[in-house]
Amino acid sequence: MSGSEIFITEFLGTMILLLGGAGVVANVILPRSKGFDGGWLLINFGWGLAVFAGVFVAFKTGAHINPAVTFGIWASGASEFGPGIPVTFANGAIYISAQIVGAAVGATLAFLTYKKHFDLEAPAATKLAVFSTGPEIRSYGWNFFTEVVGTFVLVFVVLSFGNWPGDMGPLAVALLVVGIGASLGGPTGYAINPARDLGPRIAHALLPIKGKGSSDWAYSWVPVLGPIVGGVLAGLLAPAVAF
Amino acid sequence: MSGSEIFITEFLGTMILLLGGAGVVANVILPRSKGFDGGWLLINFGWGLAVFAGVFVAFKTGAHINPAVTFGIWASGASEFGPGIPVTFANGAIYISAQIVGAAVGATLAFLTYKKHFDLEAPAATKLAVFSTGPEIRSYGWNFFTEVVGTFVLVFVVLSFGNWPGDMGPLAVALLVVGIGASLGGPTGYAINPARDLGPRIAHALLPIKGKGSSDWAYSWVPVLGPIVGGVLAGLLAPAVAF
Amino acid sequence: MSGSEIFITEFLGTMILLLGGAGVVANVILPRSKGFDGGWLLINFGWGLAVFAGVFVAFKTGAHINPAVTFGIWASGASEFGPGIPVTFANGAIYISAQIVGAAVGATLAFLTYKKHFDLEAPAATKLAVFSTGPEIRSYGWNFFTEVVGTFVLVFVVLSFGNWPGDMGPLAVALLVVGIGASLGGPTGYAINPARDLGPRIAHALLPIKGKGSSDWAYSWVPVLGPIVGGVLAGLLAPAVAF
Amino acid sequence: MSGSEIFITEFLGTMILLLGGAGVVANVILPRSKGFDGGWLLINFGWGLAVFAGVFVAFKTGAHINPAVTFGIWASGASEFGPGIPVTFANGAIYISAQIVGAAVGATLAFLTYKKHFDLEAPAATKLAVFSTGPEIRSYGWNFFTEVVGTFVLVFVVLSFGNWPGDMGPLAVALLVVGIGASLGGPTGYAINPARDLGPRIAHALLPIKGKGSSDWAYSWVPVLGPIVGGVLAGLLAPAVAF
Repeated sequence: MSGSEIFITEFLGTMILLLGGAGVVANVILPRSKGFDGGWLLINFGWGLAVFAGVFVAFKTGAHINPAVTFGIWASGASEFGPGIPVTFANGAIYISAQIVGAAVGATLAFLTYKKHFDLEAPAATKLAVFSTGPEIRSYGWNFFTEVVGTFVLVFVVLSFGNWPGDMGPLAVALLVVGIGASLGGPTGYAINPARDLGPRIAHALLPIKGKGSSDWAYSWVPVLGPIVGGVLAGLLAPAVAF
Repeated sequence: MSGSEIFITEFLGTMILLLGGAGVVANVILPRSKGFDGGWLLINFGWGLAVFAGVFVAFKTGAHINPAVTFGIWASGASEFGPGIPVTFANGAIYISAQIVGAAVGATLAFLTYKKHFDLEAPAATKLAVFSTGPEIRSYGWNFFTEVVGTFVLVFVVLSFGNWPGDMGPLAVALLVVGIGASLGGPTGYAINPARDLGPRIAHALLPIKGKGSSDWAYSWVPVLGPIVGGVLAGLLAPAVAF
Repeated sequence: MSGSEIFITEFLGTMILLLGGAGVVANVILPRSKGFDGGWLLINFGWGLAVFAGVFVAFKTGAHINPAVTFGIWASGASEFGPGIPVTFANGAIYISAQIVGAAVGATLAFLTYKKHFDLEAPAATKLAVFSTGPEIRSYGWNFFTEVVGTFVLVFVVLSFGNWPGDMGPLAVALLVVGIGASLGGPTGYAINPARDLGPRIAHALLPIKGKGSSDWAYSWVPVLGPIVGGVLAGLLAPAVAF
Repeated sequence: MSGSEIFITEFLGTMILLLGGAGVVANVILPRSKGFDGGWLLINFGWGLAVFAGVFVAFKTGAHINPAVTFGIWASGASEFGPGIPVTFANGAIYISAQIVGAAVGATLAFLTYKKHFDLEAPAATKLAVFSTGPEIRSYGWNFFTEVVGTFVLVFVVLSFGNWPGDMGPLAVALLVVGIGASLGGPTGYAINPARDLGPRIAHALLPIKGKGSSDWAYSWVPVLGPIVGGVLAGLLAPAVAF
């Protein structure tokens, strides 16, 4: 698979992921949306099924659609990122840049899908929350820890899927993400994916959004570094416990 | 498969789709229903599992039960609509007419299932909403765009199912529709299917419904043309990104 | 398979079905339960996953656990109720009597599981509702029609499962029942199973329940005859549309 | 598989189970969490999908992650706890001790994930409820009975999975646990697993939690003995009804 094919595949998968993920948040928190105030489980299923869709689209590259997965595979010592795609620095850079750009474009599409709702009055923090995560209680250290734990579970369990001889493909990771959101998303909103947070934050900074406030760059390193650390830890531990 | 067999199969599948889909909306918005005010996720699962049931019923024609899928397959350049059913104008017309009639009959059955609840006092717009979609914020251009995006995701991901070597059959599209509803249904109520909206709107216009108001024909082109455009775009893009 | 083996299998499967089904209703409507006021989707998943469990337990008899399925298979002209179990009047009587007794025992176990909650003050109709269904708007004719439609969908789609060459076993019928509840359960509470309603109603009549009121025998024929008619119609139509 | 490998596998699986299970409870009941007041179905999915994740991680030991399963397999007369792991007292002791320690560690990780929320003011009983179960209506006899019934369903249906010739692996038990929680969790909060309750209760007793109250040891035997009795009954009955 050529570099540009890898880029397009991961770009499209992550674009679909954010279109669904930013979309469900918009649906639940923007005024006059049909899903307004629809609850946390609605958000969890929206994100989980956005992963479901994105994994089908990007299946041929192994459907990382998340730099934490790319880092985790690298840390695990595996030889391939996906079928026929060797683990090299250059390939890793293609994966991750495609994911960030795809996430920015997907969030922008979600913004346009909900454009008339963004044009209504709402707190600036609400409008940012459609794009990027933020903590309920700001505490960089503990927020970072929360993102490490959530991403560790994601990558460690994904690397454990092979323990079961069967294969439920995209459904397994989708349900896993529903579960992580339900269980571990309470403090920070479960970025668990650096591209999912950084790409849309860049889009938020660039887009002409009515009543837009700060893009909260002070927090932005938490949902980038936390997931990378969690993914690397999972990658390191996974082979150590494979018998 | 003969033309009449195609018609009966797509008719029944789309009838079951609308019976479930219009049914869950009735359950959530009509007064004194047991699911009254049951939330957006209930509506999403009701529609998604109506797709699930309809796809089993119509599996032998490829279970389009949606003209946007029929258009998308045509646009993708595929040679068959379903197993042994060549892509021809005549076959396309059979699919789509069966879908519209099936949707009208299914919505009528849902109306009869909830007949005593339709006989209660409720806003005319609520009664129409059981049959057909309407936007929360009327803006034909943006509403159209929203329907294009939702249907694009539906058809593009359906055409990506083959990327995964496994097969979860009707469950995959059911979950995809749950997700699209959760994520992209907020502004317009996710028709993402011209037959799903047009057939029931015709039924609404014809049926003797107590306290019936306008069938809102001014909006009716949006959930017809938007999904067709979205499906065609997905059909055009899908082969371009298949490596 | 001997008659007593058929009886035990269908008895246990239907017992598990009602333990879960009556249980989730108790959880949502009885005072001081942790799931109190938990919403219609919770009830739908509780019932659907009770079917899931019951079908595993009774898989060896074909897991009818519902006389409407038994009637539907008979009406479809099939030669076997389950693997190696011929369609005979005697076998049908064993299935159905086991289902009714199993449902009564399962509902009794649910009653005992929630015994301390039944001991609290609550309307008599609420306590009956844990056992048997009742309509939101009493109208025997329309309530009957609603049960016919819901059961028709259940049996018709179950008989369509074979259209898909794959097999998701108990999950398919579980999700179908979640969907029927979400979409068609609003007016009558979706008995869609004569044993599910009649067995627990008998148990309600016999058990010493604090503050017990009428068992509402006037309505009891609706959730028995409606599902039988729906199942028979589905059984008659299914082969007519199988190409 | 060596004893230490069994220990590590069951430890990690149960750790992941409690991280997700205690996590979703924290999300729903601790102040200022994003999932606050998110409803019973959210809790059910959080726990069910925590089982899903834990079973993948511990698949190689048969993924008991619950002493009631270990006891149930022993009572059923099976010769192996998992592939190549004979049923012996020593192996059983390894399984169960690993489960208890893993549950304690998993709950501790959930505590740390929600540390800033535990630091807020909340009733001591709420903080305990993240760790261990407690009844809505205290009645040791009936609470015990409820735990017996819930665990009986869990283990009996798990032992019935083999009735279906297919295999949906970790998804089957995950959905079963969602259903048991929805249906039978109302009175006591469905421990249905002695390690899930005892390990975190020990952690609660040891950890420095702000505003911590009693660990409620008076109740602690109910969610230990109830599940063991339920699991043993299921193990005894399962072979008796396998034809």
